[in-house]
Amino acid sequence: MNSPISFAIFVIFLFFLVSSAHPGMQRQYYPCKNLVFYFHDVIYNGQNADNATSAIVGAPQWGNLTILADKFHFGNIAVFDDPITLDNNFHSTPVGRAQGMYFYDTKNTFTAWLGFSFVFNSAQHKGTINFIGADPIMVKSRDISVVGGTGDFFMHRGIATIMTDSFEGDVYFRLRVDIKFYECW
Amino acid sequence: MNSPISFAIFVIFLFFLVSSAHPGMQRQYYPCKNLVFYFHDVIYNGQNADNATSAIVGAPQWGNLTILADKFHFGNIAVFDDPITLDNNFHSTPVGRAQGMYFYDTKNTFTAWLGFSFVFNSAQHKGTINFIGADPIMVKSRDISVVGGTGDFFMHRGIATIMTDSFEGDVYFRLRVDIKFYECW
Amino acid sequence: MNSPISFAIFVIFLFFLVSSAHPGMQRQYYPCKNLVFYFHDVIYNGQNADNATSAIVGAPQWGNLTILADKFHFGNIAVFDDPITLDNNFHSTPVGRAQGMYFYDTKNTFTAWLGFSFVFNSAQHKGTINFIGADPIMVKSRDISVVGGTGDFFMHRGIATIMTDSFEGDVYFRLRVDIKFYECW
Repeated sequence: MNSPISFAIFVIFLFFLVSSAHPGMQRQYYPCKNLVFYFHDVIYNGQNADNATSAIVGAPQWGNLTILADKFHFGNIAVFDDPITLDNNFHSTPVGRAQGMYFYDTKNTFTAWLGFSFVFNSAQHKGTINFIGADPIMVKSRDISVVGGTGDFFMHRGIATIMTDSFEGDVYFRLRVDIKFYECW
Repeated sequence: MNSPISFAIFVIFLFFLVSSAHPGMQRQYYPCKNLVFYFHDVIYNGQNADNATSAIVGAPQWGNLTILADKFHFGNIAVFDDPITLDNNFHSTPVGRAQGMYFYDTKNTFTAWLGFSFVFNSAQHKGTINFIGADPIMVKSRDISVVGGTGDFFMHRGIATIMTDSFEGDVYFRLRVDIKFYECW
Repeated sequence: MNSPISFAIFVIFLFFLVSSAHPGMQRQYYPCKNLVFYFHDVIYNGQNADNATSAIVGAPQWGNLTILADKFHFGNIAVFDDPITLDNNFHSTPVGRAQGMYFYDTKNTFTAWLGFSFVFNSAQHKGTINFIGADPIMVKSRDISVVGGTGDFFMHRGIATIMTDSFEGDVYFRLRVDIKFYECW
């Protein structure tokens, strides 16, 4: 840093480093935070009131509120409060709750749309993470948006990659959620 | 600024100042804008069609569309168009409308999930603010995400802290919303 | 760049250029990406099961699931899977699907709230764009938020301006969507 020239190079280097943060420019980042969870959904079918963690609350004209509708469940809305676990065991101690809704929105394949939050209140995590996005269920790995967060996840944004880890007929499914935050604050 | 050394310090200072904007780094900000509002929800119960500002439009199998369901209203979806006021008086002149939905999503306590917009079209504010998030109703103060905005709130993001300011049985509640924008554009 | 003074001016210029990216400061950008699409919604009315791309799945107490309800359809929720086209012709080859929900949320005019995704899987676009916002249908041009994206639209944010391009009674409508991204990554 003993000549104006080397100093100018240093400043220009700083400029390009910083300007990568410029919205509107191309950015390539590694996640600033990465979390993996599982959540477990048990759909109310008229006989499992105690165990069910979700319930059908909307259906098309050809459907009802205890059996998922014909035509790939098109039009069924379910509200859920599902346990979140760190591994894929339904009986593991929950570390939080996945709360929100999904609805099936295609007539010729299984596709859903998700709007939900992860709610944490433990020693490890306090706060919420908010998600929305399309879920083409038959695709092995699909991405939705992390649109915001609160508490430990204040103002965070990112991508959540979801995979169906297991399912049992129309009663149980388990999702693996790989949350990659790219804006961490 | 008369020596290369002091100049270098100045540049490095600038760098750290600016680089705090770098997504992926830690950021601590004061809100760039802060707004407080109240909104008022009158739930349709079969007899208050004229005054109601919201209606139950989805219910679980054990519910119906005029009485909030058993099990902490789990599964009830309500659509609303609520007046926004500057103070906590239901009869104050509205400054905008809160429009969207909430649904109850827990079987063993009162918890809701919110997706809604504030819609303004007055001399003071023109534009919309879009919110989603989990609302653990029994907690005094809870945070949801401000995920976007339009008009005066173009591209804004932030946190909204909501508090139940008052409620009357299952017919009326009033929320205080403290909107803190951290990205203002 | 041969004197400390001109160099200092250069550095300060860089600083203001970059600091415009500072969240919390005022920013004025041109879109970093701009896309225009049309999507087409055919509402199930009990007789058009083959052609319908959406269905009523929630209604207030005074409504039902095949006819949009009285009071400006207040409380009707529809789930949709609509073809996206590049021009305003319903019979053009779709380039993607608009999947999500809308619900009518005002008793004295036509107003809706939208939560949906554009899903692309073609040579031109791969990925999803996620939207939420208020839709005051009777206003010619209205803005909603683009809150996130995946794939080609990784982490994007912006504004979508929607216009009702055509409608036929309560069975068909076509929206023009002008998507302006202001954060492109």
